[in-house]
Amino acid sequence: MKKPQINKRSLGVNFGADGLAQIAVWAPLVKQISVVVDEKKLDLPLKGEDYGYWTLTTDKIQPGDRYMFNLDGEKQRPDPASLSQPESVHGPSEALDISTFNWTDALWTNHKQDAYIIYELHIGTFTPEGTFDAAITKLDHLVEVGITAVEIMPVAQFPGGRNWGYDGVLPYAVQDTYGGPEGLMRLVDACHAKGLAVVLDVVYNHLGPEGNYFNDFGAYFTDKYHTPWGNAINFDDAWCDAVRLYYIENALIWFRDFHIDALRMDAVHAIKDLSPTHVLKEIKQHVDELMALTSRKYHLIAELDLNDPVYINSLNNNGYGIDLQWIDEFHHALRVTAGEPQTGYYSDFTGIDHLAKTYRDAYVFDGIYSPHRLKTFGASASKNKGNQFIVFSQNHDQVGNRMLGERTSTLVSFEMQKLMAAAVMCSPYIPMLFMGEEWAETNPFQYFISHTDDELVEAVRKGRKEEFKAFHAEGETPDPQSEDTFNRSKLQWQLLTQPRHKEMLEYYKTLINLRVNHKALRELNRENLSVTADAGKKILMLQRWHEDEKICCVLNFSDSVQQVDLPENN
Amino acid sequence: MKKPQINKRSLGVNFGADGLAQIAVWAPLVKQISVVVDEKKLDLPLKGEDYGYWTLTTDKIQPGDRYMFNLDGEKQRPDPASLSQPESVHGPSEALDISTFNWTDALWTNHKQDAYIIYELHIGTFTPEGTFDAAITKLDHLVEVGITAVEIMPVAQFPGGRNWGYDGVLPYAVQDTYGGPEGLMRLVDACHAKGLAVVLDVVYNHLGPEGNYFNDFGAYFTDKYHTPWGNAINFDDAWCDAVRLYYIENALIWFRDFHIDALRMDAVHAIKDLSPTHVLKEIKQHVDELMALTSRKYHLIAELDLNDPVYINSLNNNGYGIDLQWIDEFHHALRVTAGEPQTGYYSDFTGIDHLAKTYRDAYVFDGIYSPHRLKTFGASASKNKGNQFIVFSQNHDQVGNRMLGERTSTLVSFEMQKLMAAAVMCSPYIPMLFMGEEWAETNPFQYFISHTDDELVEAVRKGRKEEFKAFHAEGETPDPQSEDTFNRSKLQWQLLTQPRHKEMLEYYKTLINLRVNHKALRELNRENLSVTADAGKKILMLQRWHEDEKICCVLNFSDSVQQVDLPENN
Repeated sequence: MKKPQINKRSLGVNFGADGLAQIAVWAPLVKQISVVVDEKKLDLPLKGEDYGYWTLTTDKIQPGDRYMFNLDGEKQRPDPASLSQPESVHGPSEALDISTFNWTDALWTNHKQDAYIIYELHIGTFTPEGTFDAAITKLDHLVEVGITAVEIMPVAQFPGGRNWGYDGVLPYAVQDTYGGPEGLMRLVDACHAKGLAVVLDVVYNHLGPEGNYFNDFGAYFTDKYHTPWGNAINFDDAWCDAVRLYYIENALIWFRDFHIDALRMDAVHAIKDLSPTHVLKEIKQHVDELMALTSRKYHLIAELDLNDPVYINSLNNNGYGIDLQWIDEFHHALRVTAGEPQTGYYSDFTGIDHLAKTYRDAYVFDGIYSPHRLKTFGASASKNKGNQFIVFSQNHDQVGNRMLGERTSTLVSFEMQKLMAAAVMCSPYIPMLFMGEEWAETNPFQYFISHTDDELVEAVRKGRKEEFKAFHAEGETPDPQSEDTFNRSKLQWQLLTQPRHKEMLEYYKTLINLRVNHKALRELNRENLSVTADAGKKILMLQRWHEDEKICCVLNFSDSVQQVDLPENN
Repeated sequence: MKKPQINKRSLGVNFGADGLAQIAVWAPLVKQISVVVDEKKLDLPLKGEDYGYWTLTTDKIQPGDRYMFNLDGEKQRPDPASLSQPESVHGPSEALDISTFNWTDALWTNHKQDAYIIYELHIGTFTPEGTFDAAITKLDHLVEVGITAVEIMPVAQFPGGRNWGYDGVLPYAVQDTYGGPEGLMRLVDACHAKGLAVVLDVVYNHLGPEGNYFNDFGAYFTDKYHTPWGNAINFDDAWCDAVRLYYIENALIWFRDFHIDALRMDAVHAIKDLSPTHVLKEIKQHVDELMALTSRKYHLIAELDLNDPVYINSLNNNGYGIDLQWIDEFHHALRVTAGEPQTGYYSDFTGIDHLAKTYRDAYVFDGIYSPHRLKTFGASASKNKGNQFIVFSQNHDQVGNRMLGERTSTLVSFEMQKLMAAAVMCSPYIPMLFMGEEWAETNPFQYFISHTDDELVEAVRKGRKEEFKAFHAEGETPDPQSEDTFNRSKLQWQLLTQPRHKEMLEYYKTLINLRVNHKALRELNRENLSVTADAGKKILMLQRWHEDEKICCVLNFSDSVQQVDLPENN
């Protein structure tokens, strides 16, 4: 079987040192396949290889050429491993020599995961221009705040120019409207120059609904498993080897060719794989090989809704070896403590007692019954280190999955926002901010799309209305397809000139400064931690220590001034 | 959450020491439920408890009463945890006090798994009468052959009187036409009196198509996973706790209440469970607790088509703790070596080289590409002991899944049958025979059913014809619903009076005797083994040793007499 290649891309169109184009595509069910370049009137047949691969080495295709694959003379399709789609998802792929980018980050060293202070941003709405290059102009701001890692929401090519990124259909291609692959490289290079690590959000659990031509090539999907997006990506059914290779090599390109420092893998619980080696484990094994090759350090982060430490246990402890995971339960417990109504998934959370539990145990549901899920849920993560968990008081999902996409800034008081930030920053976990949070941005982050298929647009609109029909009293569901919805979701950088927003920014800076400069906060040792919650007073007392330093954080979630006795030896 | 109970049944109708009937049923979605006894004109409402359980303790129901559950006053259904269905799958359940059986096996001790020589039998066709009591009359024969464990194909209640057992729909109820629960107890007791352990085949991956009323009670199924039988049994979706409890307690009743010595769990690869603790692991944990309680030893056996040692690794080695598994690949390699055409699943097997590999590695596909499955398949089981693998030259599936259900006796020569038996018996694994094999039974074992739903019968007939349409030149697919098909599949005990059949029987006895009396064969140590295959000569040489004893088995699969050099130090 063809094995994933560590040192360079093996799929799509690539250029060797000899300048020849090396083309490889997996399409086991077609009878013939050729590469077509309309501008050059080229139609070059590929040669069938073992296991359904087709290859060609040619001097006729050059960087910049726009090509399609012609399947059985019947269908012209973009390259599944395309790096660039200058005419979006239905158009031709652009041949690129990614080895020619002028990197200036040779001296860059990735931060240890303990030092990550993550800032999640969405390229399209982070700046008025919505591009990688525009984002570069804001990096100084992030450095000033104390951020150490920028997390970019998915950039895989999606239709149109407005999308959170989870509707990407070409996992190797960087969104044209953001600035394409070179734009991303420029941003990463600039981040490294400023001391910022870059986390890229990647989606290995589904493809978007428009422009997904995978089924024309091969069995990328299986009906063995159902996910919220339909049939699961095929990681363990017939033909899965090539699909696994496709995603394993996808993880490698970001690290190797785009100098990304960490991948945040979306909803890995929807990656269904019952083979002896879970594909996440295989990704980790290959990333380890790449690290050995490049002498760089890369982190793997999972969004995981399973509370199952097997994902984050090390390879030699029978785990999948993922370095970190998002802890939504910390968020949920914190939000309920801060007054969020206990409806929907918040209904499982009691508030301050659960918040106290997550400081100790990371998972709230660690083998106990979850009324919302109607089952016993989770397992204990007591043997995992604090630096394996990422916590936040909001993120794109928790904001954007509300009907109106409100940030906490418009839901809770100014002081409560500060308290929530402190709850995150004083935790023994890795903190993450959602863009604009640091100045209490008031614009929402709403759900937006720009599909070009009218029926699909209608279906999404309808689905969105259906999802929030219980909330109709609170207003109209914003139209996801409308450009207004997108524009309304952009950050208002001008707010930074206003006193209250400035005050919040200063508060965040101070908080991060505190965390970074106190080893009792900085060392993510869950052993050296004690937490007590007084549900009546709504006060949580968190003590953390390291060597000779001890810090006591008193979090008062009530509306009133309260008297508390500090621990004696403080 | 309600936890599985170790010391007694917690579901269905049970009788306490006080003689009162204790009734419990899980039905989370009904508004009211009552127990109905028509003969007594009883209709007693149950009381709703936490997590969707309903209970009642009453003196009005006695052992022998036939009862149904009345759901919301709309549907009368048999008890999902019924032990007895005297009027088959659609009729009422029979209340039973299973504690009153007169066991005589107090001195019985289960064999170690190493000592198992298993005999797989189907109650309906093992004897002319097709009952547990008739089977008792044949136990002396099994003891004479040298069998140490009887494996009974599934006995869970199915419609009519003719079925392999995999269409059972009431997993706690023992088939009425076989003799019901007391009949099974008598057979187990008799086996123990003769020194025979009893393995029971249980089906935890699906329910049969007729008489499955589970959906009227609760979410026993989930559409998250698809299996060959439709939606998977719900082991990890909402409401799964009760479904897990149902199957965990099912495993316990056979050991505790029926004195079964080992469970053979059907096709566990179709048990889909992505929760942190796989339900098979949880079954093992509870069986361990039961062993501590009863001071008896119980074995768990899996039919597993995944070649993934996680299933058979011990609990403290992150495994599911299943003691043994069937190795179909040994069978496939052996059959191809013996001349079976390489079609269908046999197409993956080259013959003698693969047979040699299974002697060493158990799994042929241990991480290599499988052309038939179109993917890389399996993982190495090199760290597992020989006593964890069960091998055979035929079994109910390998015989019955042929269009005409031919045994090897009508497919290969008399001498080849002997050679195949030797290949099994000299292996470092646990051997299993399929009933009648020991005398070269010539009757087939065909696929038979006795559904009462005409449409279903037609669908099964059609499916069967469809499955074998490529083989139409070989004859007509037998009608699965016909009583002739069933009768044709019965053993012909009278063959034992004929010389050739006697000869085969003697051969099997001798072979088993050899194995039992030579520690080099009996000790299932895969380290002390060397195997070489000569594909040209079709000769396999297997050497096994233990302490001072060394045995060399020369297996000549060719049609001719051949000269071989024995290893020097033999």
